[in-house]
Amino acid sequence: MNKEEKLVVNAIGRKVPTRVNGETVVPFKGVGQHRPIGNKFGQRISSCIDFPNDGNKLVSSLKESLIKAGLKDGMTISTHHHFRNGDLVANEIFDIAAELGVKNLIWFPSASFECHSSLIKYLEDGTIHHIEGSMNGQLGRFASEGKMKGVGVLRSHGGRYQAVQDGEIQIDIAVIAAPTADFFGNANGVDGPAACGLLGFALADSQYADKVIVVTDNLVPFPCLPWQIQGNYVDYVVKVDTIGIPEKIVSGTTEITKSPDRLLLAEMTAKFCEYAGIIKDGFSFQAGAGGTALSIGIYFSEMLKKKGMKARFARGGSNKYLVDMLNEGLVEYILDGQTFDLDGVKSMRDNPKHVNTSPFTSYNYHGKGNFAQLVDVVILGATEVDVNFNANVVTHSDGVLLHGIGGWQNCLFAKCTILPVPLFRDRIPVIRDEVTTICGPGELIDVIITERGIAINPLRQDLIEKLKNSSLPIRTIQELKNEAEKICGVPIKQKFDDKIVAVVKWVDGTIIDAIRKVCPQ
Amino acid sequence: MNKEEKLVVNAIGRKVPTRVNGETVVPFKGVGQHRPIGNKFGQRISSCIDFPNDGNKLVSSLKESLIKAGLKDGMTISTHHHFRNGDLVANEIFDIAAELGVKNLIWFPSASFECHSSLIKYLEDGTIHHIEGSMNGQLGRFASEGKMKGVGVLRSHGGRYQAVQDGEIQIDIAVIAAPTADFFGNANGVDGPAACGLLGFALADSQYADKVIVVTDNLVPFPCLPWQIQGNYVDYVVKVDTIGIPEKIVSGTTEITKSPDRLLLAEMTAKFCEYAGIIKDGFSFQAGAGGTALSIGIYFSEMLKKKGMKARFARGGSNKYLVDMLNEGLVEYILDGQTFDLDGVKSMRDNPKHVNTSPFTSYNYHGKGNFAQLVDVVILGATEVDVNFNANVVTHSDGVLLHGIGGWQNCLFAKCTILPVPLFRDRIPVIRDEVTTICGPGELIDVIITERGIAINPLRQDLIEKLKNSSLPIRTIQELKNEAEKICGVPIKQKFDDKIVAVVKWVDGTIIDAIRKVCPQ
Repeated sequence: MNKEEKLVVNAIGRKVPTRVNGETVVPFKGVGQHRPIGNKFGQRISSCIDFPNDGNKLVSSLKESLIKAGLKDGMTISTHHHFRNGDLVANEIFDIAAELGVKNLIWFPSASFECHSSLIKYLEDGTIHHIEGSMNGQLGRFASEGKMKGVGVLRSHGGRYQAVQDGEIQIDIAVIAAPTADFFGNANGVDGPAACGLLGFALADSQYADKVIVVTDNLVPFPCLPWQIQGNYVDYVVKVDTIGIPEKIVSGTTEITKSPDRLLLAEMTAKFCEYAGIIKDGFSFQAGAGGTALSIGIYFSEMLKKKGMKARFARGGSNKYLVDMLNEGLVEYILDGQTFDLDGVKSMRDNPKHVNTSPFTSYNYHGKGNFAQLVDVVILGATEVDVNFNANVVTHSDGVLLHGIGGWQNCLFAKCTILPVPLFRDRIPVIRDEVTTICGPGELIDVIITERGIAINPLRQDLIEKLKNSSLPIRTIQELKNEAEKICGVPIKQKFDDKIVAVVKWVDGTIIDAIRKVCPQ
Repeated sequence: MNKEEKLVVNAIGRKVPTRVNGETVVPFKGVGQHRPIGNKFGQRISSCIDFPNDGNKLVSSLKESLIKAGLKDGMTISTHHHFRNGDLVANEIFDIAAELGVKNLIWFPSASFECHSSLIKYLEDGTIHHIEGSMNGQLGRFASEGKMKGVGVLRSHGGRYQAVQDGEIQIDIAVIAAPTADFFGNANGVDGPAACGLLGFALADSQYADKVIVVTDNLVPFPCLPWQIQGNYVDYVVKVDTIGIPEKIVSGTTEITKSPDRLLLAEMTAKFCEYAGIIKDGFSFQAGAGGTALSIGIYFSEMLKKKGMKARFARGGSNKYLVDMLNEGLVEYILDGQTFDLDGVKSMRDNPKHVNTSPFTSYNYHGKGNFAQLVDVVILGATEVDVNFNANVVTHSDGVLLHGIGGWQNCLFAKCTILPVPLFRDRIPVIRDEVTTICGPGELIDVIITERGIAINPLRQDLIEKLKNSSLPIRTIQELKNEAEKICGVPIKQKFDDKIVAVVKWVDGTIIDAIRKVCPQ
């Protein structure tokens, strides 16, 4: 970030840059206030004359495919996180780039994981200029310490689709690691040793990238079905020995939480939904994959059984418990964005009512509506919440980048958004006067549930009215904050350097906040 | 067609215009000779802020939806032929347009049928300026007699996708008649009283049209699954009483031919494939829906059973006989573009190995390959073939537009293309010195099979070699032509006016031929 570049205060009161990595950006204008103009990006027109007559797009190695795709300095290279911490492909791409002496690449992952920490050396030696995507663990610390050459750009899953669709970012080469594929490039995530469920995070890349490479360790005869990625978008197919570490891709089993605090949060959340009249025949819900969220599913399950009702659909992250609900008829459909365990993978493969979705269908804000807004209640996490219900998911209170946004921003458009959070973590209050980073505007966050009380957003007088006579501990958010501070003390404000190390985009592509370099403690 | 507009002779020797309906067009340059430049069309960027928060896009009537979509003079309106001769929606659109006094519309159907003949009155009164799509029956005669204001543009199914994708035609309003849909616009063709199988012909329109209207008579709660059309592309949903006449959409049963001539053609074709070594384990084929093609499927079936082999896939048009092959394990997958009977619909709905495809996956020449080229043998019809193996499917020898191109041009890219045709029809020879209209270049047409002999294209020395010692009556195409003329006499050349009434596009968007006004006999 050039120091001379202009900062402005955006509609939510955050000082953000107007240019990022040399490109003009739009500061956040308020929820629903930014109307896009212009047309979607059009991929370069291809022709069958430039592809093999017999449909066989196999090349001998990832290196060969990257060379054929024209890998060169400054390109934007995309990868995807459906292998989570078991991905072996992204690192190999940049090993090859470094070997070829290519510099200043932009890495555009749908998310990064701890397994990508070895890419720090390429951020240091200039192979990678910067990352557009979440930065966790060591990568997050590296960026937070101001060591990355460019400015990181954090987007939600829906925002990533939007950015690609709208041409805000143009992918030169997309590398799609696929658990199963055919020589034509049709690919899926439900079969093969690295089965991960679905490849939805790579959809935008297949549709809009200039060159698309599918890498698989399970090549099947044409046609590979289902074709979650359509070969008609694919330039090259590479067969390798291993694309991922199965046990790090999906866990064999999913554990619900044993923590009494988390169980309490889950129970309070489920009860809140019941009192609020959300749990009814044909309702819909989405909960994350953490232990608390899993437990909420179990409570919902019990409530539905007791009432003799069923949910119309659940949006996933799917896991054994959600699959059980589907199989027991407690939920009619799973609209799944990511499978978290082998039960999820198997169910998506075999049950036509367990459907793979994509950031386009579920989350794209620059579509003609999306699924997230149809969900009756969504239960999400947060690292911090402020007294105006604004919330943070990307940094902790020490200011270090630690999490991606995932679908979190997109999910806020559900009819009711609940954040069950502990009142404090490691004696650091979660509810604060101001969050370190705003990822979601408070007006979209309806309920904060802590083990010591529930705060309902004053904008939701309907919910306040419904919960008036419940047995649940309804408080104001200020009361919750005070209670935390009574126990932990008023937190000391983290100091930051002026240097902007990353920006957080809102679902419409505008800049909602900037993340600054952390000062050494 | 303005008389002053320039004509040129294209690479296949036909005199074609360089401008059509006021737009510059590219004359055919030869197979694989036209490399497109530029980028695909980008649909206008939408935003969730302009769509209902709850995802409910229902409006009260087709008329209201057309008004909301901004229907006005000169717009391009698209419809689709998945209801074949049972469509009730296309006529209603133009009834509404006429009622509203809208003029000069371009109708862009994926195909037209006899049931659309009532639109002639709107071609006469200026509601519709011209048709870009096939013109059959009375519509074909109307156009052929030079009565349409604009010039008709005939495209293959793949060419239609290509034209929309490349922005050669920009659809203002797409109206997608859907046997089942939800309020969000997700839609499919496998359920509901008007079930037709699939909605692939409408895919391009959903992706690229400015406004998309889904019309259904079977509204189901969200989510409508499978979502062959994705609601994220849809602006409005209309519920009406009836969208189609089921018995005209799909026939309850499919009949194989009882004509001895056609059975002979089918048997000769199947035998040819056997001698040519095409029928082997894992092979693939596509045959049309006519009686001859159906019978070929039966011969293939018997051959596979006898040999203990199976086909890897069949491309459809599906019907009872193909579904039987799938169920008996004689073919592993049906990759279907159009279901022709209720067995096809049911199989597509219930059998995951019976997969719906689209003109994008199967036929788009401006993609990174397509399925058609992967097919080992395709069996197609033709109205005429010339001594250079060029063939015609859109006009008969009297010059009148009578058929659409369908997927015919796209299928020519299969590894072996066979046209089984009678040597003459109504005493008019099918093999001629010159076809009335060139739809497919002879270099892509490998074999002509008639009841009196088989001609192999001299370009296919490999096939000539293989069939050398077969018992089949291998002749030259000239011999076949001579034999027909010995029986029927040399056909009198049809006379045409100079006026161009329609053009035929090749799969790459270039003009392969022009169709001229017929002179009164």
